[in-house]
Amino acid sequence: MRGKFITFEGIDGSGKSTQLRLIAGDLRVRGFDVLTTLQPGGTPLGRRLREAFLETEEQVHPMAELLLFAADRAQHVNFLIKPALAEGRIVISDRYADATFAYQGAGRGFDEKTVNQVIKLATDGLKPDLTLFFDIPIEKAILRTNSRADHETVKNRMDSETTEFYTRVREAYLKISKTEPKRFRIIDAGGSIEEVHRKALEIVTVFLNGK
Amino acid sequence: MRGKFITFEGIDGSGKSTQLRLIAGDLRVRGFDVLTTLQPGGTPLGRRLREAFLETEEQVHPMAELLLFAADRAQHVNFLIKPALAEGRIVISDRYADATFAYQGAGRGFDEKTVNQVIKLATDGLKPDLTLFFDIPIEKAILRTNSRADHETVKNRMDSETTEFYTRVREAYLKISKTEPKRFRIIDAGGSIEEVHRKALEIVTVFLNGK
Repeated sequence: MRGKFITFEGIDGSGKSTQLRLIAGDLRVRGFDVLTTLQPGGTPLGRRLREAFLETEEQVHPMAELLLFAADRAQHVNFLIKPALAEGRIVISDRYADATFAYQGAGRGFDEKTVNQVIKLATDGLKPDLTLFFDIPIEKAILRTNSRADHETVKNRMDSETTEFYTRVREAYLKISKTEPKRFRIIDAGGSIEEVHRKALEIVTVFLNGK
Repeated sequence: MRGKFITFEGIDGSGKSTQLRLIAGDLRVRGFDVLTTLQPGGTPLGRRLREAFLETEEQVHPMAELLLFAADRAQHVNFLIKPALAEGRIVISDRYADATFAYQGAGRGFDEKTVNQVIKLATDGLKPDLTLFFDIPIEKAILRTNSRADHETVKNRMDSETTEFYTRVREAYLKISKTEPKRFRIIDAGGSIEEVHRKALEIVTVFLNGK
């Protein structure tokens, strides 16, 4: 039986990566074979591309960024996600195509047609079965990312973006939930880690039982 | 006045890079402001992407390759080629979009629509004013690349391709010359460096005088 493909989305500082680790742990305890991964950077090539993007000494043109993330995604989908799903595993990815729709589309201002064209090329039509969007007020997210001292965050180009940028990104995410309410679920991520975890686990549990 | 955009194309071992250096030298002697560049790898980001592609420990999926070269091209077009043309310079690029049409299209088997879609996104519609295709029998090209001992060639993933692959690539290049005979000029590159150079210089000179 084909596995399930679950994605976690949210703006930087929404806590999605922490929640992903918790949910993956819960599912493993219940006996599920879970593969956790991330975009960009889920494959050896992807990690190199991610590094190239973060470390290059020049500005990255928005179209180059869009295509670079798409290259990472094509590698990720074809060599990691699809094979794992074919083996019946549960794949949980920290970000996927919705992030491109939100960040490159609404954030960088590419029209939907262009973004959807690139997403379709990169994903070969593979859509998540379930997406959890960890929703948090922009100001709170910025506070959270600023208080992080880890190396990765310091290097994160997204840090330099403005509140308006994140507002557009968040609105794009919320727009997806209107067109695909069954797949794309919004979780209020403003509470404690435990509260958010309880909500996320409930949705994932209902989803896995319901299939 | 807008500059001129000239591209050099040919399969590996066709001698195009040598010819590019010679022609650029000729034009500089004549007083032209010439920028020579290459794809992939014409920008700092592009060099990192090229490295990632050549050095990654895993196979690169054909779609990831197509999108990765497109990301390199978007950066190159927007941050290097277009600004140089706007300054009135002559830009000569070692490979450009025709290479994607030939290598990823005919070589890897992507349909023309997909390849043209990606090229259009990456180039923003920028086409060369003149393209020189250095045509050489496949067997001769393979002999030439095999006899090279330089590091770059050893690492070149293209080396592992078959004669059939290169035959398809060459035919795709020849097909372009049929649809765009004025822009895309074929040069018999089987002769000596001096012979080929003389032919190439004649075409470039006529082109620059004719405008």
